[in-house]
Amino acid sequence: MSKIFAFSIRKDEEPYLKEWATAHPEVDVDYTDQLLTPETAKLARGADGVVVYQQLDYTPETLQALADLGITKMSLRNVGVDNIDMDKAKELGFEITNVPVYSPNAIAEHAAIQTARILRQTKRLDAKIAHGDLRWAPTIGREVRDQTVGVIGTGHIGRVYMQIMEGFGAKVIAYDVYKNPELDKKGYYVDSLDELYKQADVISLHVPAMDSNYHMINDETIAEMKDNAVLVNVSRGPLVDTAAVVRALDSGKLFGFVMDTYENEVGIFNEDWTGKDFPDKVLKDLIDRPNVLVTPHTAFYTTHAVRNMVVKAFDNNLALVEGQTPETPVEVK
Amino acid sequence: MSKIFAFSIRKDEEPYLKEWATAHPEVDVDYTDQLLTPETAKLARGADGVVVYQQLDYTPETLQALADLGITKMSLRNVGVDNIDMDKAKELGFEITNVPVYSPNAIAEHAAIQTARILRQTKRLDAKIAHGDLRWAPTIGREVRDQTVGVIGTGHIGRVYMQIMEGFGAKVIAYDVYKNPELDKKGYYVDSLDELYKQADVISLHVPAMDSNYHMINDETIAEMKDNAVLVNVSRGPLVDTAAVVRALDSGKLFGFVMDTYENEVGIFNEDWTGKDFPDKVLKDLIDRPNVLVTPHTAFYTTHAVRNMVVKAFDNNLALVEGQTPETPVEVK
Repeated sequence: MSKIFAFSIRKDEEPYLKEWATAHPEVDVDYTDQLLTPETAKLARGADGVVVYQQLDYTPETLQALADLGITKMSLRNVGVDNIDMDKAKELGFEITNVPVYSPNAIAEHAAIQTARILRQTKRLDAKIAHGDLRWAPTIGREVRDQTVGVIGTGHIGRVYMQIMEGFGAKVIAYDVYKNPELDKKGYYVDSLDELYKQADVISLHVPAMDSNYHMINDETIAEMKDNAVLVNVSRGPLVDTAAVVRALDSGKLFGFVMDTYENEVGIFNEDWTGKDFPDKVLKDLIDRPNVLVTPHTAFYTTHAVRNMVVKAFDNNLALVEGQTPETPVEVK
Repeated sequence: MSKIFAFSIRKDEEPYLKEWATAHPEVDVDYTDQLLTPETAKLARGADGVVVYQQLDYTPETLQALADLGITKMSLRNVGVDNIDMDKAKELGFEITNVPVYSPNAIAEHAAIQTARILRQTKRLDAKIAHGDLRWAPTIGREVRDQTVGVIGTGHIGRVYMQIMEGFGAKVIAYDVYKNPELDKKGYYVDSLDELYKQADVISLHVPAMDSNYHMINDETIAEMKDNAVLVNVSRGPLVDTAAVVRALDSGKLFGFVMDTYENEVGIFNEDWTGKDFPDKVLKDLIDRPNVLVTPHTAFYTTHAVRNMVVKAFDNNLALVEGQTPETPVEVK
């Protein structure tokens, strides 16, 4: 009987682990909530493979500890592999998999909901209601259907976002260096970013961060946008010159801003700063603004995504253990 | 040259009034932000018709004051006519119009946004972020696409809500005493409310209040629902037994509750209670809950709706003034 051992399983992951175990009675599944370290590695003794997910580094010592137990098949529940010592992994003959896509809808839905909230001024209205002011005026909403929504990047996530916005009845336009043939046929694409900035009431970014698009949203490109535009960045922090956005919020050029990523988020997001000095004044100011919605890189975090992270990692690991080709292997080099 | 005078024009109505006036250079348009009373009526001197909207009663004295100026053509920017003294209006030969539909999308979009927010736990997450807790776990979202959404009432608003939920990718089912033939053909309808309660993860009400559906959502019908159901009422307060919903929130049976209407809202909504004793403990408790979103009957309040209220009222009044048939006359009897 094959055995798979999982590290650092959170409470919200347990149901999906148990679901997978029930569906695979031929596999012995065990797990811990502890992170994988040279010390905790021994919990996996007897296993044929391990399922892991942590910000903590997979150091040479950690990998060696697993290899000493005869375990060299490792499946990540997430996408990132930067914290794995690849030289050591290669030396020890590790086979590794990851989960490159959890749920495009998790991120697209979040972007859509936050977009609609900005248009509807829900943060301002909710604050009024919370302190007992139940008057509706002057906190008036803009309907999503009245907007021209400009989507930059038409990969998985961008396309789901487009579909949601169309469900609301919005007019959707798009820009991408690589045009999707189906969208192209339907006439979604404008010819340039300039054209998109000129036409769109809402601009939503769905592109990876590259050297070429660093600070693509800046004073100049914001100036090209319509007055009262809404900017949405649930993709990557470096796409946006945050200082330029703050200026555009101050001047009233931008009606609102949605951010799930921030160019200086490392070391700040996913930490608890309650009762401590908040480490970033710009971010704190954005969090406090009534027409800005900040979330700390949580757009991905849905039950659907977490289920996929767990189930796909176990599927991958079982494939490795059984000597088959896993769906999403990571090159160990 | 015809002249139309408008009373109690708010700041957010002005742009649409000016838009209408510009489009009708043949009409002399004037207005005030004051309410229509026996005293202010004289501001309309010389006008052929008036455009109005107020909670204040249109008393016999007010109507007489207008008639004394030769003005008997009155167009409401809203739907409700209960505050007009109809006997007097009839005696004086008044012709009256209203605007029965401002924007079904305003209400449907609001319902959809609030539904998605409950599923995503945004109130809980936003509160964490506001006080500096930037950890994502355990505030996990449910994706809209994973839900079966049960829509009760498939009139204008219900149908727009269905379309938005389908844009998200949700499975939509519906119930209505009067089936829409097109929806029926597509197989949306279930045979009974019991069936809808049994299948739906989200239940959204889009029906008028009648004697027959008073407290249709009560202990018994909630018991029929799935565990962790989300209830949405942006229609009419009396449809919901609020005490039963509070019990279901306490027990955890309901995952969350969206309310834009409340059975005891008269005299409470659209008032400012800041710094005063809040007049309703049940409502205050609901406002404070992390899995309840209360708005004070604001779902209708969008720029699109306000534009329609202004433009349609002026269109109606011009028709009256020119002796044509207005689009939405009110029976004066």
